[in-house]
Amino acid sequence: MKPMRLAVLGCGLLGGSTAAAWRHSGCVTQVVGFDIQPERARRAQALGIVDQVADTVAQAVAEADCIVLATPVGAMAALLAQAARHARADALITDVGSTKVELLVNARQILGDTFSRFVPAHPIAGGETPGIEQASAELFRGRWLITTPAAGTDALAVGRVEANWAACGARIERMTAQDHDRVFAAVSHLPHLLAFALVNLIAGQPDGARKLQFAGAGFRDFTRIAASDPVMWRDIALANRGALGHMLGEYRRQLELLQAAVDAGDGAALEQIMVRASRVRREQDFDDAGSEPDGR
Amino acid sequence: MKPMRLAVLGCGLLGGSTAAAWRHSGCVTQVVGFDIQPERARRAQALGIVDQVADTVAQAVAEADCIVLATPVGAMAALLAQAARHARADALITDVGSTKVELLVNARQILGDTFSRFVPAHPIAGGETPGIEQASAELFRGRWLITTPAAGTDALAVGRVEANWAACGARIERMTAQDHDRVFAAVSHLPHLLAFALVNLIAGQPDGARKLQFAGAGFRDFTRIAASDPVMWRDIALANRGALGHMLGEYRRQLELLQAAVDAGDGAALEQIMVRASRVRREQDFDDAGSEPDGR
Repeated sequence: MKPMRLAVLGCGLLGGSTAAAWRHSGCVTQVVGFDIQPERARRAQALGIVDQVADTVAQAVAEADCIVLATPVGAMAALLAQAARHARADALITDVGSTKVELLVNARQILGDTFSRFVPAHPIAGGETPGIEQASAELFRGRWLITTPAAGTDALAVGRVEANWAACGARIERMTAQDHDRVFAAVSHLPHLLAFALVNLIAGQPDGARKLQFAGAGFRDFTRIAASDPVMWRDIALANRGALGHMLGEYRRQLELLQAAVDAGDGAALEQIMVRASRVRREQDFDDAGSEPDGR
Repeated sequence: MKPMRLAVLGCGLLGGSTAAAWRHSGCVTQVVGFDIQPERARRAQALGIVDQVADTVAQAVAEADCIVLATPVGAMAALLAQAARHARADALITDVGSTKVELLVNARQILGDTFSRFVPAHPIAGGETPGIEQASAELFRGRWLITTPAAGTDALAVGRVEANWAACGARIERMTAQDHDRVFAAVSHLPHLLAFALVNLIAGQPDGARKLQFAGAGFRDFTRIAASDPVMWRDIALANRGALGHMLGEYRRQLELLQAAVDAGDGAALEQIMVRASRVRREQDFDDAGSEPDGR
């Protein structure tokens, strides 16, 4: 087999897991890692996830067949510009970011004539505990991997990226960047915002610590995502502010209805919302859904 | 040991688990069950959780040393009135409901001279999958059990109820009913309302099913409590509408700030909220908190 050299730019949970999964599935044979915090790349090397640590983006991408952007999405445009300047002309570039519309606009401008080699991708996996120590080649098994090719994206390049992820056990779906950002504003970005907001609200109250002391399993699970990396989620909220702002507005209208029902003691209105939500949620099929004790 | 007869009124998850836990820990020796749906009481008997099924509340409580109200909170006042009419004068009455202020007002009015024997209690345990089949004597181990005695509540009766729960492994805390309803409006009732609202919002959108298809582990955990029993939660929202309405208003103000930050692309404002929430949530100590894969 021809050696396949991967440059992973950003050695966190997702970058490290991507490197581990692609190597484990035989998609790449060599991995060079770069991180703006050099000690993170060195930890990746110590864990056997990357073979070589690069001191600069230029050094990381110089010989690479494939480059994966794995930083918070707010850092990707500048990183892409650097990578493109030093990459081989035939190197494939992809990413693992959670938002796509803004990145595609930036990529088209940055890459110009070589835009076709950029394959926007988003694995629906991760964890609220960041860091290469949590990285796993198995992180993507059974999870969705979304690609959002645009007009001008090379079809062969998309096929190669999708094949790599399929080899890691991911389920592949292709959609437009606009559709992607709308879908994940609803089922991911908004819930994160709502969880951050609740924990921040309670933490800021004079008796917040006392309230949190009595939180049960329901609160634990509802707010688990509020432990996520704030910089990563700040960037996601900013990059997807159109779709996220829209969903947040819709959600606030839902809460207006609920507030009116609570204040008026309107049991029928409350029950209608709760009955539908409960039915839909129970029917929803999660691969690893389980029932756990719930604190009310 | 003197035989101790428990009447459990409501044979669902909490009523069944209470009967099982109290019997298992030796607090009661005989259990009679009543449910408005007789087949639920018969299932409790088939599972060995209750020894006898009563056809009426009168029959259930006639010989009982202790009576536990374990229905949705909206049904408790009428049930308490019935139970009090037929109970022995020395029978202790307690409950496992999630709201306390309204119940205490009702209990004082219903019980009159015998109000002292009513001990309001709330085990912080349960589950979004209702039904006696999920009942477990271990449900309360390591969980909080809150009592909210009021002026006139018999101190010995409170002590007996607390001792029973402590024998089941619960951690005991006493607070006022007002304090209880404020605390749980924040860390339990509001999160449930928010989860119901999100699932209902997405389910009602034209592309709701498609969006839900791509939901990951983050959404799964955030919305797990939206699968909870709608009647139970309608009753909780109504019974605690003062404190819940207040917290919902506070939360809606948080979302106004977030909406302004998202719409304006104000990364500093977003980061400030997310940094505090993330820090507080990571520092929070849950007995059984774990890190699971997260869909973003």
